[in-house]
Amino acid sequence: MSNPGPVIRPANASDNAAVVRVLNDWWDGRPVSDMLPRLFFVHFRDTTFIAERDGRLAGFLCGFFSQTFAAEAYIHFVGVHPGERKSGLGRSLYERFFEVCRGAGRSVVRCVTSPANKVSIAFHRRLGFQIEPGNGEVDGIPVTQDYDGMAGSRVLFTRLLAGPEDPAALVRRER
Amino acid sequence: MSNPGPVIRPANASDNAAVVRVLNDWWDGRPVSDMLPRLFFVHFRDTTFIAERDGRLAGFLCGFFSQTFAAEAYIHFVGVHPGERKSGLGRSLYERFFEVCRGAGRSVVRCVTSPANKVSIAFHRRLGFQIEPGNGEVDGIPVTQDYDGMAGSRVLFTRLLAGPEDPAALVRRER
Repeated sequence: MSNPGPVIRPANASDNAAVVRVLNDWWDGRPVSDMLPRLFFVHFRDTTFIAERDGRLAGFLCGFFSQTFAAEAYIHFVGVHPGERKSGLGRSLYERFFEVCRGAGRSVVRCVTSPANKVSIAFHRRLGFQIEPGNGEVDGIPVTQDYDGMAGSRVLFTRLLAGPEDPAALVRRER
Repeated sequence: MSNPGPVIRPANASDNAAVVRVLNDWWDGRPVSDMLPRLFFVHFRDTTFIAERDGRLAGFLCGFFSQTFAAEAYIHFVGVHPGERKSGLGRSLYERFFEVCRGAGRSVVRCVTSPANKVSIAFHRRLGFQIEPGNGEVDGIPVTQDYDGMAGSRVLFTRLLAGPEDPAALVRRER
């Protein structure tokens, strides 16, 4: 028999605690749990997904539909259990998110990552994300400097999901 | 001449950096900036407000319309400059949020605070918030234990904005 992959389902409020408890471990001890408040699991439930294998948390994706930009969606946080990496689960979580976006008429998906995270940059490129022009460059990658007020740079990704791929749709006054 | 209060306006993405830079100071050095990622200033711009006095940041409110619950809105984070406290600015920020909620047909506003934050609890009660029944009690206040997976308790507030104040509207299977 083939070994089925993890099962992906929309999140429930009660998933928040399980995700937060494992989160700092999956990120090698970096305290990241403040970035995942319960609100994502309550108020963005249909765009936040939990992956489980045999009832055990294998991964998750927290995203939402932009309230400001009606055509856009944003992926805030994705985590995959260290033992599930390179299995395609990250891609499956993104594809599930894309599917929900298409169903809701969201044609642009955005997310950001750190310039130091080469694995994440390669992953997003494989998934068809484009890197937005920035105001700086790190190791040949365009970055947006002082993205968050903490002097950190970020790589900004955009993925068009459907419709005419009109670059004008991506031009906005302020980002 | 009377001294006008701070001016309140919707947020822009560029406000994120200014808010994050002052945030840890306003919170007595507690690192809270991870809780205010740029996404709130980009994708929830019309429910996130900046208060300025003479061009200087006086306060802010980050909220959003619930994607899961069509009648609900949530206030994620509110900050007031220490020199502006007790001036009514907190109330003005909440009232501006309520106004936008009413205009969007959102009739229930939710937010949470820590049981230790007596000033916040009193503030929300004065503004007409009810405390939701919890699964515990701290100093006579109902609390929800292990709210976020980090073993912390929270006080859950609900404010009805308009329409028949039907308690049944607040009954949901899971919170």
